[in-house]
Amino acid sequence: MAPESERKLFMNGFPCKDPTTVVASDFKTLLLNHAGDLNNMVRSSVNMVTATEFPGLNTLGLSVARTDVAPGGAVLPHYHPRASEIMFVHGSNVVVGFFDTKGRQFQKTLGEGDVFIFPRGLVHYIMNYGFGLATTFSVLNSQNPGVVGITHGMFAPDSDVVEGLMSRMLKFGEVGVSENSTSDVPWTA
Amino acid sequence: MAPESERKLFMNGFPCKDPTTVVASDFKTLLLNHAGDLNNMVRSSVNMVTATEFPGLNTLGLSVARTDVAPGGAVLPHYHPRASEIMFVHGSNVVVGFFDTKGRQFQKTLGEGDVFIFPRGLVHYIMNYGFGLATTFSVLNSQNPGVVGITHGMFAPDSDVVEGLMSRMLKFGEVGVSENSTSDVPWTA
Amino acid sequence: MAPESERKLFMNGFPCKDPTTVVASDFKTLLLNHAGDLNNMVRSSVNMVTATEFPGLNTLGLSVARTDVAPGGAVLPHYHPRASEIMFVHGSNVVVGFFDTKGRQFQKTLGEGDVFIFPRGLVHYIMNYGFGLATTFSVLNSQNPGVVGITHGMFAPDSDVVEGLMSRMLKFGEVGVSENSTSDVPWTA
Amino acid sequence: MAPESERKLFMNGFPCKDPTTVVASDFKTLLLNHAGDLNNMVRSSVNMVTATEFPGLNTLGLSVARTDVAPGGAVLPHYHPRASEIMFVHGSNVVVGFFDTKGRQFQKTLGEGDVFIFPRGLVHYIMNYGFGLATTFSVLNSQNPGVVGITHGMFAPDSDVVEGLMSRMLKFGEVGVSENSTSDVPWTA
Amino acid sequence: MAPESERKLFMNGFPCKDPTTVVASDFKTLLLNHAGDLNNMVRSSVNMVTATEFPGLNTLGLSVARTDVAPGGAVLPHYHPRASEIMFVHGSNVVVGFFDTKGRQFQKTLGEGDVFIFPRGLVHYIMNYGFGLATTFSVLNSQNPGVVGITHGMFAPDSDVVEGLMSRMLKFGEVGVSENSTSDVPWTA
Amino acid sequence: MAPESERKLFMNGFPCKDPTTVVASDFKTLLLNHAGDLNNMVRSSVNMVTATEFPGLNTLGLSVARTDVAPGGAVLPHYHPRASEIMFVHGSNVVVGFFDTKGRQFQKTLGEGDVFIFPRGLVHYIMNYGFGLATTFSVLNSQNPGVVGITHGMFAPDSDVVEGLMSRMLKFGEVGVSENSTSDVPWTA
Repeated sequence: MAPESERKLFMNGFPCKDPTTVVASDFKTLLLNHAGDLNNMVRSSVNMVTATEFPGLNTLGLSVARTDVAPGGAVLPHYHPRASEIMFVHGSNVVVGFFDTKGRQFQKTLGEGDVFIFPRGLVHYIMNYGFGLATTFSVLNSQNPGVVGITHGMFAPDSDVVEGLMSRMLKFGEVGVSENSTSDVPWTA
Repeated sequence: MAPESERKLFMNGFPCKDPTTVVASDFKTLLLNHAGDLNNMVRSSVNMVTATEFPGLNTLGLSVARTDVAPGGAVLPHYHPRASEIMFVHGSNVVVGFFDTKGRQFQKTLGEGDVFIFPRGLVHYIMNYGFGLATTFSVLNSQNPGVVGITHGMFAPDSDVVEGLMSRMLKFGEVGVSENSTSDVPWTA
Repeated sequence: MAPESERKLFMNGFPCKDPTTVVASDFKTLLLNHAGDLNNMVRSSVNMVTATEFPGLNTLGLSVARTDVAPGGAVLPHYHPRASEIMFVHGSNVVVGFFDTKGRQFQKTLGEGDVFIFPRGLVHYIMNYGFGLATTFSVLNSQNPGVVGITHGMFAPDSDVVEGLMSRMLKFGEVGVSENSTSDVPWTA
Repeated sequence: MAPESERKLFMNGFPCKDPTTVVASDFKTLLLNHAGDLNNMVRSSVNMVTATEFPGLNTLGLSVARTDVAPGGAVLPHYHPRASEIMFVHGSNVVVGFFDTKGRQFQKTLGEGDVFIFPRGLVHYIMNYGFGLATTFSVLNSQNPGVVGITHGMFAPDSDVVEGLMSRMLKFGEVGVSENSTSDVPWTA
Repeated sequence: MAPESERKLFMNGFPCKDPTTVVASDFKTLLLNHAGDLNNMVRSSVNMVTATEFPGLNTLGLSVARTDVAPGGAVLPHYHPRASEIMFVHGSNVVVGFFDTKGRQFQKTLGEGDVFIFPRGLVHYIMNYGFGLATTFSVLNSQNPGVVGITHGMFAPDSDVVEGLMSRMLKFGEVGVSENSTSDVPWTA
Repeated sequence: MAPESERKLFMNGFPCKDPTTVVASDFKTLLLNHAGDLNNMVRSSVNMVTATEFPGLNTLGLSVARTDVAPGGAVLPHYHPRASEIMFVHGSNVVVGFFDTKGRQFQKTLGEGDVFIFPRGLVHYIMNYGFGLATTFSVLNSQNPGVVGITHGMFAPDSDVVEGLMSRMLKFGEVGVSENSTSDVPWTA
């Protein structure tokens, strides 16, 4: 597919390959079989693959992703505005959680082979409290799920904010967050 | 419809009224024709009405809302995980904006009769820099749009956080934010 | 967007803007903030705005409309083959109504701030019995709702037919139509 | 399924049969294999069958119908607010037509085995100018297509109106209506 | 529409006709009013018509088909991966059936005017045990239903396989298959 | 959820949990973290999990599955009538393939971390030519994907048929099947 900067016609979605030139490798991707670079402030890496890079996904309304988290690392709270996410855990244990629209927190510890769901549009996070690399594979039910970090736009994305988030998240795990802790909803008042 | 706490069967959506008992007033609601209480920290009020309160909305996949903002007030940044929002402006001018998934900010000043769109799942806000009450009417394309404030869960919803957000938002208006200011995306690193 | 007469490729829907050139004003429209021309036989005006004129609506499956009705005026019975309509009332009172598929008439008087729903594909009308201009803002859940007047095709659209309809409609209001008056369905016999 | 008058719970759609009791005859219907009663003013009969009478249709979003028209008879102009209709012609020739949202008339003569489409929500009609019984079988892509005659509610459904419509329709066939005759759209002015 | 081999741009679906050039014959097709060639091993013929050949079907998500089966002939077991099928019977009696995902067989004898449903994706077949030509008309709820024969790929499509299937199918009719005969599901073990 | 045999009301889909009783473990499942029993004729095991066993999947339109294949084992050709399948490979290499509606075979060898797609409704298979246990995790985009083996109903599910299939499948791998080998489509003739 032509790079976005060279395209003349923009559609919602993608044009299809000429059906006579489709081959088996269009339905296979190698893009998720290596960990990403973990040398960063949060010691994690997310690699999302959509129909742009993986033609076989076109018209299915699905995307796939691989996430790697080093020990002591985390994927900071974020959400996907247009997709739910189903996640398979591989390797070390992880602690994952999300907040529903009433501010309740749902958090669990997951091990090898466990499966977890982050419902559409809800803020979620992953933390690795273990001693080995944690890897997860995800399917998102949108061809273009998008991602929004909760510090987007409103806060300067500097190291202070990230560190603040990280230390706050560490408390989630330490204090043994109950499964359904409701907080008030402060957005209008 | 029975209050949620008394129901025995929970479905995704609502049962229908007995068709023989449907009357014209099922298709009319008065719930949006008075301003809400503005005596709060952010001097604004949001009243969202779904099929629970307004039976005629059932099976349409739509909700309606009225927002009132006093002079100097704001609706803090929030998003709806399951809906886009179309907004009609009534009364005083407002400044509205949203952030896309690449962190770009889209902000406009709106007057009486203007219409604005907040795309599905993106963080948005409303500010009233005028001298009169500003009112907006919205339609959201979900029967259950939900709402998430960006301070949900991760930050204590105390007055410091709200004041911090308010003062940051005031800067948006003062400095004349350009229409497309991109900021980096800090959620994984 | 190129005028329809110059286009070469016709799709169901519209191509998207180049994402790098999207600006905040794509999500705002001024097209609904002035009344239309009311110097006509029925003293009303309807202005419907779709993704053609308002790019931010593209892919949302929604359209917006403004309707103005002078005192003694009406919007004649019509329907939208591909959309339900949610209407906010502004200014003077209006009497609105629709007919369901069993021929039952559902009619209500609406005031400032009231909200009413016309279900998908059902014939509906608006009448202004008040002393001031009545304005309504609507959202329709289709990118291309279409409109069909009930005199379309089968009757000559001359002033006699329009006057006949108007006088018949005046009776609706005068006699205080009950909320659910069923008439027989004569289309096959 | 229980008669509508005895039901306690109303849903949009129908509950399913207990899967263990489903039998082959649930997927077969005999309801369309006899002509309806043609002893009426318009000498036609329409029999629409939905999931209520034909359990195998449940969850498919489809309905089926049989229409019989005696020589000189017609199905008066009507529309289905929630469905397009595909029609197979059997027996005598028929003249069919519909009006689009710009008031253009699309009319054709059909013979045995021909297939015609009436797009969603558009007013259409069938006339039998032949010497034998004409029968058509239709599929509509909604579980609850609904039907609205164009004289519904606004006109008294007496024999004068029906005769007026019939004589107007006869002219359609006599004068050899061109395929695309546009008339103005009088619904707002 | 240009032949597929000459097209440059492939989309999921079809571009639309220029709306100003649409005529009534776009909504009519003659492609189903003659029987196909029955001089083949199974004495049957299937003619499926989609939006490629019948422009009026575009954007409806529907296709139509005509099937002719000579006495003693059959349509071998096959399925449509992307559509359910509603079938009207015309002419001689037929025996039809399908298998559900638990391996249960649902079989019925159908006569003139009967209607039968083959649910989405399930293997089905048609047999003509009568003395005259049997014809059926079908609507499939996909613009591109596809068809897969159960001997596809895994078995050589030679006359032995076809004869084996035919003789097996003949037994279905002879032994009076009960409506719900469950067989075990051998695909994993 | 009550066992199916005890339920009184059958719907398409499932009722929801009482929202106030939802807990974090509703979004986690352990059902996929152990291999199934491989002591069977084909030395493979498939474990599919839907909203019945995993409440968090409800209303998402998604299911998950784990497949284990011992060395020399296979998952026999089958298809899912209502879902596409995305598969992540874990452990030993596998050979996978599917047939499109034109009878073309698409086959690939996959290793650890590779991802493959089986399009909706197409017959597919998995073979393990390696020396270790191969495990795959799948997401299917239907709440009720269903499964049909190609020997269902039409062939006796005895060991001869299974062995015939197995030996035929072995040839696929041995002879190095080209990516797009078209075979004729024998279902009507």
